[in-house]
Amino acid sequence: MASGEDDLIARYFKPLAHDAGAFDLTDDCAILKASADDLVLTTDAIVEGVHFLPDDPPESIARKALRVNLSDLAAKGATPAGFLLTLALRRAEESWLAPFAQAIGEDAAAFGCPLLGGDTVSTPGPLMISVTAFGRVPAGRMVRRAGAKVGDHVVVSGTIGDAALGLEILKGGPAAGAATSDARAALVGRYREPQPRSALAEAVRDHASAAMDVSDGLAGDLTKLCGVSGVSAAIDASAIPLSDAARTVLAAGAGRIVQLIAGGDDYEILCTVPEARLAAFQAEARRGGVRVSVIGRITEGVGVPQFSDADGRVLALKALSYSHF
Amino acid sequence: MASGEDDLIARYFKPLAHDAGAFDLTDDCAILKASADDLVLTTDAIVEGVHFLPDDPPESIARKALRVNLSDLAAKGATPAGFLLTLALRRAEESWLAPFAQAIGEDAAAFGCPLLGGDTVSTPGPLMISVTAFGRVPAGRMVRRAGAKVGDHVVVSGTIGDAALGLEILKGGPAAGAATSDARAALVGRYREPQPRSALAEAVRDHASAAMDVSDGLAGDLTKLCGVSGVSAAIDASAIPLSDAARTVLAAGAGRIVQLIAGGDDYEILCTVPEARLAAFQAEARRGGVRVSVIGRITEGVGVPQFSDADGRVLALKALSYSHF
Repeated sequence: MASGEDDLIARYFKPLAHDAGAFDLTDDCAILKASADDLVLTTDAIVEGVHFLPDDPPESIARKALRVNLSDLAAKGATPAGFLLTLALRRAEESWLAPFAQAIGEDAAAFGCPLLGGDTVSTPGPLMISVTAFGRVPAGRMVRRAGAKVGDHVVVSGTIGDAALGLEILKGGPAAGAATSDARAALVGRYREPQPRSALAEAVRDHASAAMDVSDGLAGDLTKLCGVSGVSAAIDASAIPLSDAARTVLAAGAGRIVQLIAGGDDYEILCTVPEARLAAFQAEARRGGVRVSVIGRITEGVGVPQFSDADGRVLALKALSYSHF
Repeated sequence: MASGEDDLIARYFKPLAHDAGAFDLTDDCAILKASADDLVLTTDAIVEGVHFLPDDPPESIARKALRVNLSDLAAKGATPAGFLLTLALRRAEESWLAPFAQAIGEDAAAFGCPLLGGDTVSTPGPLMISVTAFGRVPAGRMVRRAGAKVGDHVVVSGTIGDAALGLEILKGGPAAGAATSDARAALVGRYREPQPRSALAEAVRDHASAAMDVSDGLAGDLTKLCGVSGVSAAIDASAIPLSDAARTVLAAGAGRIVQLIAGGDDYEILCTVPEARLAAFQAEARRGGVRVSVIGRITEGVGVPQFSDADGRVLALKALSYSHF
């Protein structure tokens, strides 16, 4: 005679819990077996109306919830080992839970990060999904935010600013009118479903002096990386990689580069690579199929990195990133 | 130029993050160092209006959030290793955050479970606190729910039903009028601030064949333990340990034993101990200062365990436990 919560878990999530350490979700706790690796821990929560929109598809919400955590692991050079899933739901609806569970199960398989356990609670408020993800690195090899050295190249994966434009389009902002329908779909897709750069994790671990993922805005996140490393940076804004869709919006005058570098939800990897390691890093990234772009250099000093345009003029940034409070 | 979220973390939580693996909360991820132990993982969330009341003191909410997870670790025989804290807040209020952080820091120190990291997000809805806690056990030694054998003694720690009565008192139910003010305070205290039986973890690991913590109601939780163990149980309800405060309420006719064994939030350990291990288990519990009571035996069969009164009459249970859905 199982309770409603147990029924829900057995029905939707037990089929995803293949890992021996999950005990078919019939225990209070899960296990990660002892190994010679350090365990890398990360947790990120997403809230309806804050991190995703109420009418986002459940599949997208599922992918976002897991992928924002996989992005953190990749940026630390870690290999995924598993995750715990906490759901706060207003009600248990088949029409939402079934596609949510299927999508998160597909992602768990695709990224080699099995569901190990979790918690399901009721809430009178917004839907909230909290994921805690685990990765492994050889002992002592996690790549930190601290570690950037003067002269290191500043490198970013993929393209920057797409998700910020995607959110603006969903909210009916100026970008919505400036983009073609293909461009709109591409930008909204980047907002709804981050692409964690798991394929870059090993290159980061082998070659980067410091790394983090870009989740709150490139400018603000680089400022944090520089802060804990005790350095600053000089960035060539014209070298910041933009998608064709983002270029279309900027060309139409419906957005500015300063918005894109302060916008959030990129989930790209930002890292610093010593000169002597750059060619090897780039080659390994190419083998992994991940585009990487050198956008500047680490410099002496403290404070906010300088972003300059193609003519060398320093850009004035009104905001560096998104903040919850 | 840190954002509001970073300021909040630096101000209230960085002072608690002494562990080297927390990196002063300045990185995306935390580390648990490689060791020869298995890592035990658990996560439990509490939601305002569901798991605690809006006017519960922030100190109590902090303790409950961490302790419900410590209770899970103890029931698995695990030694605490650290935790991640996710806070979903409507706003960042000094008057709430300062006592919350202080209390959770004190508990982290008292239970040897350091803060390793977390996430802080804004929500338009109820306050929610999600904790993921980690413990260590020697490889292969986690005590599971599965494992109870016919003939094993059924044992429970502490006293049962106090928290359910405490919640009823806070809601103005019949127990409120029946209890003295001391009894009311004791029962409400048990609802607000669970006492994880961490001192019993080693005894459980050394001697129990199966174990879990009682969080959703003794009857329902024992049913789950029996279910995954493929057995049933015969329980002497008159042997279920009750506090003096709970006895006062029952004596006044303002509550019945069947309510107490289906009520939640006990956070006691329920375990099964083979005959040959019982004396050693009891001796180790006594050394740890934790009261343990034998309440019945594991029997053959499947289905809900039988609870009988002192005269051998089987009790009719309307509900086994609390369910969220």
